[in-house]
Amino acid sequence: MLTEQVVASFENTPNPRLRALMQSLVRHLHAFVRETEPTEAEWMTAIRFLTETGKMCDDVVRQEFILLSDTLGVSMLVDAINHRYATGATETTVFGPFYMEGMPERTFGENMAHTPGEPVVVRGRVLTIDGAPITDAVLDVWQTAQNGMYSGQDTQQPHGNLRGRYRTDAEGRYAITTILPVSYPIPTDGPVGKMLDATGRHPWRPAHLHFMIEAPGYRTLVTHLFDESDPYLKSDAVFGVKPSLMVEYRQRDAHDQLARQFELSGPYREATYDFTLDRG
Amino acid sequence: MLTEQVVASFENTPNPRLRALMQSLVRHLHAFVRETEPTEAEWMTAIRFLTETGKMCDDVVRQEFILLSDTLGVSMLVDAINHRYATGATETTVFGPFYMEGMPERTFGENMAHTPGEPVVVRGRVLTIDGAPITDAVLDVWQTAQNGMYSGQDTQQPHGNLRGRYRTDAEGRYAITTILPVSYPIPTDGPVGKMLDATGRHPWRPAHLHFMIEAPGYRTLVTHLFDESDPYLKSDAVFGVKPSLMVEYRQRDAHDQLARQFELSGPYREATYDFTLDRG
Ligand SMILES: [Fe+2]
Ligand SMILES: [Fe+2]
Repeated sequence: MLTEQVVASFENTPNPRLRALMQSLVRHLHAFVRETEPTEAEWMTAIRFLTETGKMCDDVVRQEFILLSDTLGVSMLVDAINHRYATGATETTVFGPFYMEGMPERTFGENMAHTPGEPVVVRGRVLTIDGAPITDAVLDVWQTAQNGMYSGQDTQQPHGNLRGRYRTDAEGRYAITTILPVSYPIPTDGPVGKMLDATGRHPWRPAHLHFMIEAPGYRTLVTHLFDESDPYLKSDAVFGVKPSLMVEYRQRDAHDQLARQFELSGPYREATYDFTLDRG
Repeated sequence: MLTEQVVASFENTPNPRLRALMQSLVRHLHAFVRETEPTEAEWMTAIRFLTETGKMCDDVVRQEFILLSDTLGVSMLVDAINHRYATGATETTVFGPFYMEGMPERTFGENMAHTPGEPVVVRGRVLTIDGAPITDAVLDVWQTAQNGMYSGQDTQQPHGNLRGRYRTDAEGRYAITTILPVSYPIPTDGPVGKMLDATGRHPWRPAHLHFMIEAPGYRTLVTHLFDESDPYLKSDAVFGVKPSLMVEYRQRDAHDQLARQFELSGPYREATYDFTLDRG
């Protein structure tokens, strides 16, 4: 049988891991083709789609194959496989392509927004699974501006806008002043956009704040916090939503104690979330 | 479960065929990832491999994704699915990327070689499954020169070298004078070449002559004839070999009747093969 002949051709792969990957790939790829029986024209359409996807990639900002992996749910699957944390640890979600290293160190409660939006305070604690506070954990945080673009991706935004590295205090507390995250579409001007369009899917991601949380002795946590009122929560284009990662942005008064502490001059919203790290 | 969530996201695809293809793709792709549990680094290696494969393609000669499909045996599988001919019909094999339309019309037995090589005559008949001759069938034939390159691919070769359109006579007979085909490697300077190298596979295809045979009222036959003495018959890089498609190039005398008929001045070889077409 052809499939077994192709599997056998990889038998002499020196690296046993590569051998296992290639042989499994051949079996599953052939199973897909045997099940769907593509016409030659359909197969050429697939070849052209993959070719255009490769050509859409640049080495800086755009990675259309990651977008394809995201929109087929594979990135979330790879995430789940690689982050099987202990029960009680905060759940993970996709890293995404817009993280940047070396962003500004921020003080407790510092405002990381230099573009307009509704002011919010996000605060809580970083804890062990037993509920003990973790001091000096670093929370790398990033989100889009109101135009749905990240600084770096959008060269109009000031360097470090809506990005920053916050640190927990002696009680494990963190606090971030920023603007309310907005839902945004993933890029639709390439083959992945055409695929979403042809399949009746929309490109929107529900509003979220990205976190990467590191503390010595603990496993690094990459996750999001989602706005629980977002209309795209049930149809995230990249399947990143988990119920445990939703927060409510509660309306707060312009002149309350927290507003004074963080120097907020008008009404604002507040979300609270405690992160729990698995021991490394 | 994530996989079912992704499958469900394609539920509103307007075209039912596209819906079935995408949902099957998601199930098989996820099954591959669940089985192999790639690390995040391995998944990024796959993303980079696909990106480089896309970037290697040009719109003229090089199609690296077809090469990937060929070397993973998928092209042969798609060929088998789309050419389920009646018992007794000649078996098919891959079309390959080097066919050219509009090649010279050749007379019975005409020499299509304008570059050096060992002279051969390939001849036989084109028949119905019942054994009746098919008159005026057109055999589009192509092969590489001794350097392993096809005219068109190799711009040094004269136009139409080792290509031609032959026609069967009233008894269904065809005859081609050419040179002995050689084994040749598929292109190895791209990602597919790296994949073959990393997996201990060689890039060689056993020596073959390409045929596309058309006759009104019959299904078009795309196939090869392989040299039965070729060392790569059991390890064709693209899995195209079928036992029924092998021929023997027998040594023939310089001065026999056939040599005189086709104006061959020295020793030559001869291979005979009867093609059988399925009714359309
Ligand atoms: Fe994001
Ligand atoms: Fe060939």
